[in-house]
Amino acid sequence: MRIGIIVKPKHENALPALKELVSFLKSEKVDFRVDPSSAELLGAKVPVAERATLPKKSDLIIVLGGDGTLLAAARHIPPRKIPILGINLGRVGFLTEIPANEMVPALKLFLAGKASIQERMMLEASVFRKGKRLAKYRCLNDAVITKGALARIVPMKVATNSGLVADVFADGLILSTPTGSTAYNLAAGGPIVMPGLNALIMTPLCPQTLSLRPTVLPAEETVEITIVGNPEEVFLTSDGQMGSPLMPMDKVVVRRSSDSISLVMNPRMDYFSLLRDKLGWAGG
Amino acid sequence: MRIGIIVKPKHENALPALKELVSFLKSEKVDFRVDPSSAELLGAKVPVAERATLPKKSDLIIVLGGDGTLLAAARHIPPRKIPILGINLGRVGFLTEIPANEMVPALKLFLAGKASIQERMMLEASVFRKGKRLAKYRCLNDAVITKGALARIVPMKVATNSGLVADVFADGLILSTPTGSTAYNLAAGGPIVMPGLNALIMTPLCPQTLSLRPTVLPAEETVEITIVGNPEEVFLTSDGQMGSPLMPMDKVVVRRSSDSISLVMNPRMDYFSLLRDKLGWAGG
Amino acid sequence: MRIGIIVKPKHENALPALKELVSFLKSEKVDFRVDPSSAELLGAKVPVAERATLPKKSDLIIVLGGDGTLLAAARHIPPRKIPILGINLGRVGFLTEIPANEMVPALKLFLAGKASIQERMMLEASVFRKGKRLAKYRCLNDAVITKGALARIVPMKVATNSGLVADVFADGLILSTPTGSTAYNLAAGGPIVMPGLNALIMTPLCPQTLSLRPTVLPAEETVEITIVGNPEEVFLTSDGQMGSPLMPMDKVVVRRSSDSISLVMNPRMDYFSLLRDKLGWAGG
Amino acid sequence: MRIGIIVKPKHENALPALKELVSFLKSEKVDFRVDPSSAELLGAKVPVAERATLPKKSDLIIVLGGDGTLLAAARHIPPRKIPILGINLGRVGFLTEIPANEMVPALKLFLAGKASIQERMMLEASVFRKGKRLAKYRCLNDAVITKGALARIVPMKVATNSGLVADVFADGLILSTPTGSTAYNLAAGGPIVMPGLNALIMTPLCPQTLSLRPTVLPAEETVEITIVGNPEEVFLTSDGQMGSPLMPMDKVVVRRSSDSISLVMNPRMDYFSLLRDKLGWAGG
Repeated sequence: MRIGIIVKPKHENALPALKELVSFLKSEKVDFRVDPSSAELLGAKVPVAERATLPKKSDLIIVLGGDGTLLAAARHIPPRKIPILGINLGRVGFLTEIPANEMVPALKLFLAGKASIQERMMLEASVFRKGKRLAKYRCLNDAVITKGALARIVPMKVATNSGLVADVFADGLILSTPTGSTAYNLAAGGPIVMPGLNALIMTPLCPQTLSLRPTVLPAEETVEITIVGNPEEVFLTSDGQMGSPLMPMDKVVVRRSSDSISLVMNPRMDYFSLLRDKLGWAGG
Repeated sequence: MRIGIIVKPKHENALPALKELVSFLKSEKVDFRVDPSSAELLGAKVPVAERATLPKKSDLIIVLGGDGTLLAAARHIPPRKIPILGINLGRVGFLTEIPANEMVPALKLFLAGKASIQERMMLEASVFRKGKRLAKYRCLNDAVITKGALARIVPMKVATNSGLVADVFADGLILSTPTGSTAYNLAAGGPIVMPGLNALIMTPLCPQTLSLRPTVLPAEETVEITIVGNPEEVFLTSDGQMGSPLMPMDKVVVRRSSDSISLVMNPRMDYFSLLRDKLGWAGG
Repeated sequence: MRIGIIVKPKHENALPALKELVSFLKSEKVDFRVDPSSAELLGAKVPVAERATLPKKSDLIIVLGGDGTLLAAARHIPPRKIPILGINLGRVGFLTEIPANEMVPALKLFLAGKASIQERMMLEASVFRKGKRLAKYRCLNDAVITKGALARIVPMKVATNSGLVADVFADGLILSTPTGSTAYNLAAGGPIVMPGLNALIMTPLCPQTLSLRPTVLPAEETVEITIVGNPEEVFLTSDGQMGSPLMPMDKVVVRRSSDSISLVMNPRMDYFSLLRDKLGWAGG
Repeated sequence: MRIGIIVKPKHENALPALKELVSFLKSEKVDFRVDPSSAELLGAKVPVAERATLPKKSDLIIVLGGDGTLLAAARHIPPRKIPILGINLGRVGFLTEIPANEMVPALKLFLAGKASIQERMMLEASVFRKGKRLAKYRCLNDAVITKGALARIVPMKVATNSGLVADVFADGLILSTPTGSTAYNLAAGGPIVMPGLNALIMTPLCPQTLSLRPTVLPAEETVEITIVGNPEEVFLTSDGQMGSPLMPMDKVVVRRSSDSISLVMNPRMDYFSLLRDKLGWAGG
């Protein structure tokens, strides 16, 4: 058993949590390595590995930070599924659902082989120009086509493998996983989709046609978006973190990725208790 | 091969379509029986069977009417799946997606064994009072908890087999199949869900908590709604056609039905072309 | 100066608040009368008047309860504008925005002539059948056309004095004042409208046409809704409390009332701090 | 009487409409001048003036194009109100509501002094940095704060002259006039507001807080938005056409402009018939 540790170094709660984690792992004699940020933060001699190589030799990745830190870490997880345990340094997040003060009990549960681990589907979003693939992203939350601040509306031809969906005139289009349904998709008016469902959610951003509505498709569907007309400043972004500029006639193809992510669940909170907490629903 | 025919008798286009159908079936020497309404409308000697018994001895049911006629007919389809071919006497519907002038070609395709048939999941909604089941419905579109016109808001405790969802204060709650997602669910702000997905859509009607949002669950989830507080005039309706009054502390349990319906598809229109047509989307 | 007191008798906090109020008024030698419920609750000899006559001889009405208690009391306020001071026995409401523990300071401010009083426009909703007025309501929050639980969609022809608006097929239609915009209208997807604006908000309930959207009209517009088709179980309700059944071809005419209500404001909370508190917005 | 003519030169229907207009004005002996684009398009000798100076010496401005052409022209209209007659070269628009084939009758009505002219309020949006005004825009439709495609959410502190509204975390914020309510505001989920109402509509773009809702304020309110936190790539745009980059701690102040625009109305179409036509509502 070897554990890799990734931290959001600038967070004020990062150091105490990291210290507690390292001290616990030492006391349990569990082998671990940290990313360079963690090493610098600790200022002590600990085994270090680059973020990109860290996952390859680990049996568990612990992320200390927020959902953004976990999304960034997820980009480096290789095809064989290494579970990620997300510790939120602030309020719990949708992905980092274990608060710092529940870190050690959650980790003990994992080491005892009793943790609940949930597999989460990902998307693969590719950009094609004149038939040639220019870029490929793997997204845990979403692939988003969006326009620059000063740009006009984006005309898109949207199709699935079963045919044309519609000509869409909008600020953009979100293609989300169930995991990402509570992120940008929710702010844009899309539905909450439980992570157990293998589905792809397609939500237009400020569409001109008012009857265009968020649509949930089986994960087996492939969505192909062609940028039509002559819009300026259109981009594809992946998990809100990386992106490619798009040109007229570029095609974005979004399908289920053959990779997935394994998340270690909070033993004390199910999906709907997390939603109640984050969205301020009554009950519980 | 025996065909059962059900008609919405009061529609002005019912008689010509029915005559064309009967004449075609006679010319093809296909055995058929009609419901009593059709027989009366035709005013001629044709084999007749009650609506409730008609499906039992048929290999195909043809419904001439609108989506409401098909929903009513679906109530009598027995567990073994008899395909339904829905002919819309007006504009195409979401369920009766074949217009009258495409009836004969669609039927020829079916008789030649070349029709595309889609299986659609249904819901089973049961009402329990003090642990005793009072009523059970099978729903192709939706099971809806709703209040009377003069009644106050309905307080509901909503749970799934994985635990409490939330305390909901609303005008009601829609539990919809993917097939029903484009019916009442859409008017209430819910998402479009492609029929190929095995899912259950839960959409609150005018909830007091603004962050309560339409939620899509795997079809394996069971949703249990308990009427709490002391509301007057609460009802459960099935497919907008039948219903039961609910009392405080009654439980409504909604799960996937073990039955399903088989719909004969319009050979010329896929799912999204139907949506473009019905919702006024551009494209195609 | 004479004060009238109206109480929601069944609330557990009603008696202590009422005792505190009566004791304060006696100590200040302010003349007051209470409604019969208050008298019964107090069980002591105090001057009593019926709810309907109480306002006529008062210079201020104090309502102890929730928004519903104040809406009911507002029905009896005569055309000359008597200010209403709403004390909420639970969490603050949109209308009863003074909590019980701020009652005495708010009242002192009023008696010193320093309270801020806000005039709120009302609506007048009339039902006409074959040209004859059957009923007339005065609404502080809203006039709502709505259907029974088992009834189908309501077809309505909606017009203003400037002409036809649209043929609306929906579960109903809300006509709201700015004051009522944060009540039922908000749950139905309508906008928040600041009470300083003289406007009428028209929000359809679950309309079949997805592009029908909440619409804000100048208060000078008259809205006329004709029930068309042949729907069963349609009602007009006023402030969620009273109602009339509607028949096919009935007309509901909604216009600004010549009456208005004067509300004594919470000296410590402006409009947006109330919204932040009630809707869980960040800030402040 | 002198008429100024502004045209969208690249539209395929521009030349025939322009020729018809010029020929009609000559036959009626009405003095006119055209913008340079029109002159080039006509290729004939006609009196010319720059777009910016054209309005100053005209009693009517005719715009041939779409809503965008009219919005651009409106930027040059001086404080004294010169009516604008908008001819749409394609389908009617919300601002250019007279189709090309109704141009001459509409113009005859205007020349006879019988046209209906509607005054439309505008907004003034100013950018302040460290207390200094950097830019000022006059907006007929809207002032929009929005983020770049790759930027994160924009944190804003929003206040009115009556105090703090809320801390808003969103993709941006629309401040719209009633005229602009059917433009970007509608796509973003805001309400339709009749142009006769003096109001300011504030609609967040994809807000993180789901209970933040479109809000309608009296036009006398001033809205002040401060960019807080440290977002990258934030812009203020006016009528979707011009813009300024915003820096952290910049303040955007939006209030009613002292200027307004006068639009010559389509004599054949009132506000709601235009909405029915543009939004696909039934009726009429």
